[in-house]
Amino acid sequence: MSGYTIGVDFGTLSGRAVVVRVSDGEEVGAAVHEYAHGVIERTLPATGERLRPDWALQDPADYVEVLRTAVPQAVAAAGIDPADVIGIATDFTACTVLPTLADGTPLSALDTFKARPHAYAKLWKHHAAQPQADRINELAHRRGEPWIDRYGGKISSEWQFAKALQLLEEDPEVYARTERWIEAADWIIWQLCGQETRNACTAGYKGIYQDGTYPARGFLAELNPGFADFADTRLAHPISALGERAGGLTAEAAQWTGLPEGIAVAVGNVDAHVTSPAARAVAPGQMLLVMGTSTCHVMNSSERAAVPGICGVVDGGILAGLYGYEAGQSGVGDIFGWFVDNGVPPYVHDEARAAGVSVHDLLSRQAGEQPVGGHGLVALDWQSGNRSVLVDHHLSGLIAGLTLATRPFEIYKALIEATAFGTRKIVETFEAAGVPVTEFVAAGGLKRNPLVMQIYADVLRRPISVASSEQAPALGSAIHAAVAAGAYPDVATAAEAMGRVEKDVWQPNPADAAVYDRLYAEYALLHDYFGRGENKVLHRLRSIRDEAFRPETGRSEAPAAGGVGEVESAIREGGE
Amino acid sequence: MSGYTIGVDFGTLSGRAVVVRVSDGEEVGAAVHEYAHGVIERTLPATGERLRPDWALQDPADYVEVLRTAVPQAVAAAGIDPADVIGIATDFTACTVLPTLADGTPLSALDTFKARPHAYAKLWKHHAAQPQADRINELAHRRGEPWIDRYGGKISSEWQFAKALQLLEEDPEVYARTERWIEAADWIIWQLCGQETRNACTAGYKGIYQDGTYPARGFLAELNPGFADFADTRLAHPISALGERAGGLTAEAAQWTGLPEGIAVAVGNVDAHVTSPAARAVAPGQMLLVMGTSTCHVMNSSERAAVPGICGVVDGGILAGLYGYEAGQSGVGDIFGWFVDNGVPPYVHDEARAAGVSVHDLLSRQAGEQPVGGHGLVALDWQSGNRSVLVDHHLSGLIAGLTLATRPFEIYKALIEATAFGTRKIVETFEAAGVPVTEFVAAGGLKRNPLVMQIYADVLRRPISVASSEQAPALGSAIHAAVAAGAYPDVATAAEAMGRVEKDVWQPNPADAAVYDRLYAEYALLHDYFGRGENKVLHRLRSIRDEAFRPETGRSEAPAAGGVGEVESAIREGGE
Repeated sequence: MSGYTIGVDFGTLSGRAVVVRVSDGEEVGAAVHEYAHGVIERTLPATGERLRPDWALQDPADYVEVLRTAVPQAVAAAGIDPADVIGIATDFTACTVLPTLADGTPLSALDTFKARPHAYAKLWKHHAAQPQADRINELAHRRGEPWIDRYGGKISSEWQFAKALQLLEEDPEVYARTERWIEAADWIIWQLCGQETRNACTAGYKGIYQDGTYPARGFLAELNPGFADFADTRLAHPISALGERAGGLTAEAAQWTGLPEGIAVAVGNVDAHVTSPAARAVAPGQMLLVMGTSTCHVMNSSERAAVPGICGVVDGGILAGLYGYEAGQSGVGDIFGWFVDNGVPPYVHDEARAAGVSVHDLLSRQAGEQPVGGHGLVALDWQSGNRSVLVDHHLSGLIAGLTLATRPFEIYKALIEATAFGTRKIVETFEAAGVPVTEFVAAGGLKRNPLVMQIYADVLRRPISVASSEQAPALGSAIHAAVAAGAYPDVATAAEAMGRVEKDVWQPNPADAAVYDRLYAEYALLHDYFGRGENKVLHRLRSIRDEAFRPETGRSEAPAAGGVGEVESAIREGGE
Repeated sequence: MSGYTIGVDFGTLSGRAVVVRVSDGEEVGAAVHEYAHGVIERTLPATGERLRPDWALQDPADYVEVLRTAVPQAVAAAGIDPADVIGIATDFTACTVLPTLADGTPLSALDTFKARPHAYAKLWKHHAAQPQADRINELAHRRGEPWIDRYGGKISSEWQFAKALQLLEEDPEVYARTERWIEAADWIIWQLCGQETRNACTAGYKGIYQDGTYPARGFLAELNPGFADFADTRLAHPISALGERAGGLTAEAAQWTGLPEGIAVAVGNVDAHVTSPAARAVAPGQMLLVMGTSTCHVMNSSERAAVPGICGVVDGGILAGLYGYEAGQSGVGDIFGWFVDNGVPPYVHDEARAAGVSVHDLLSRQAGEQPVGGHGLVALDWQSGNRSVLVDHHLSGLIAGLTLATRPFEIYKALIEATAFGTRKIVETFEAAGVPVTEFVAAGGLKRNPLVMQIYADVLRRPISVASSEQAPALGSAIHAAVAAGAYPDVATAAEAMGRVEKDVWQPNPADAAVYDRLYAEYALLHDYFGRGENKVLHRLRSIRDEAFRPETGRSEAPAAGGVGEVESAIREGGE
């Protein structure tokens, strides 16, 4: 059980490589490399062409640079002998997906296509395929497709099929040349080991791969006749279990990374899901909360149930042999950030400065000193829409109970509570569907905010454990690399040895929990009233807003519809 | 038609005297005097005794000082000969009420009682008689008292009966010595002319004087046997019409004021109501909006109808010979002020500073530049409770439609709109009860905010005229003084000559009004859902809040229940 593995975590703006000791998971070195092109969302660098709203592209060449720079730097920082590295694994944002030739060459790398936006990788937060997603959902329900309930009743515009259909319909030439339509999570593995693989996680959660098959030809043909053979020709490939060996490191990749040729390369993975073993949250009923800008809830279960409004349930989607569930809240840390940026007056900033603490810390302290319920407020946490369990990004936020005595820290606290109520609503939905949740483990930037963690423990009425690593996704990847290298028989065993968690750090306070039961009852009432169609005011307000900007050409655009961001943001930017 | 009159406007913190030319209403001089004791709400000056929460007292001796200082100063500032002054009149906050001996001596002026809080004048915002008010209302409805519907179904804790019953029950000795229970509005006239009078306005709106009588003995006895003779012994007195001559200026008052002995003193009046003639809004259907910290709606009608949720309808309550209606919104300018103080971040303050404008002005400008409905928000304006038409001060405010893109000026605009919707709800309630509203005239500090005025015109879909005077209550008093002095036959005629209004300054924009119809429909839905009992979440939140502070003795008190302030605040503090 000697040696080291490398975990590489590919984020929205950069990639982070971490060197991990296989015997005990100790992180011995790390390095970060920022993508040269970052997120391409305004103009295409090759031509200066202006992109339309909601577009978000990346240049896959940037990903390779992470292998060439961050990996050797991390090894150097660790001060280890590269020859002691026995494997490498990665995790990625998802769904980030690109068109390639049959050999894996990105179309954006071809001179003929480098001026075509559709030839590039579409980042997870590319939201321009909403019309296609709407048609996919409408048709799936009309035809009664069996897979639609596995995704809480809704396929996201962020996922593989919506983005591919947009490609077909907007740039048929690029589509025609697309021989493989592949997640960046799998593409980067292809670069490392020279073999195409498809991992069970992204195939299931982002590729609608269920029960051994993609959506049927007839379904795809009805969306667009030219789309009929899409899955057969551009996706089809054997699916690999997470932690499997995808292949050996190629000579070229060995040269990029400075690592020994032939060492194990694990199949691809996704940032939130790969965090589970790093936090030792892999047993059925252990729910991992990756809490940052948004929150991602991932959990294994031995049962497959139809849980309304979740992001997806995938066989082996987190750990081979179990059903992996994913749910999420679109806005969490970004709601707190929005409030601090836009709703906190100068006197609070002055007070924080005088106390030598951040505004977040001051508000948290003041909020913690007030008895629970003392603000008289309840909020709905839909400033960025609702991912689970309503799956409705046209909802928006609400604060009720305001008086002339309401102070900023009270609103701050109510917003935190609202996100805790949102998690409780998700948990209750799981349990009502027969999927028990027995334990909570927190990861992500918000795990470091004591007020947030205490409120979650009180609202959920259960202890919360905390992942120890500050770079848990990369650690999770390194765990998968160790399994792929044969150092451990499976991911669960490797997690036991290499993952790290502080157990039951946050305990519910029964008296506060009792008050939160009452406040949650109010939240639940408003949740259903505003979220389940009794009063569609939030939808109508959005329509009125959108119409307000339409007739005037000189006006600036209406603000974006609120992030429908996926797991990436949860891990990286939130609260850090 | 030569000469001048003096109008004296007694506010919460100070009194303002204005010298007005009788021929045309020109204001030729003014002076302000602040009360030495201001509002007595923490400790009684005579003893240092700590007052309980919700108490608010005044020392009537302070009122006399206004006559001794502000009046002669105003005359001096005007540079006129005091001999040219033909009359004086006053207006007051209400219900501000005090116990006196039969000769008008305040009990607080007696050595035996100066240490007793109940011997002082109870200011309009003394809210400690709520338990008594609750019992009055419960009993009135149980007995089916005919007068209760004249007050929108609810007697306020601020009014004469609730405050008197509190006095009886908490300090029977002071009550026993109380020979007259009199509005400060009438008491100050007594000081000027040496005669007790009772004006139709406060008798009706604050004293439950209806159809020539006070509440019956049997009713009062059922409240408390010792209260049975309260009206007969401590209130009963002939009622004087507004604009009537109460008497001639006494030698003593002539010495205080420097005015000629024997000149006309008009009967007392109330600040909002007295503003109507100053703004020439005295004809039936002309609704005066006194818009400041709160808003007071006063209007005459030839019909007496039961309008649900108004503050009151009183025969001759504004103008002799017509039914005077009063309604109100508890929070208006104070909501905007609360938001600017507590919800506007430093970057907006910086921007305002750079532009050389106030934060209010910057937000107003930005809000005005955005198309109507472009914020996607709707709010409920109940941060200070709801005076009309729900008459529920345990309601609180709400903002819906928030997204991560929501900016401060958008919330500011939504709050302004919510108060406009609140006025529209009042107007619609009047009209549904068969009392037509044909015209709007704005007075008070907010009349100077163009954004506010345009939004009100758009939401109400009617032009809005604006009172010209910046000290309209004092001008209104001076108009009444002119009538009392015989310079005009009645208030309406005097208003025509001396009142000043700019007609139809603000015109509705049809396109914006159409969008506001849609937003108002959303407001109305939420208004009824949260305000009429379908979801009592706002009440429950308040209970949870109050309970949160109860068990802990070391905690500070829960914030006050939000002002239930009457007309005073509307005129004086708001937006000025």
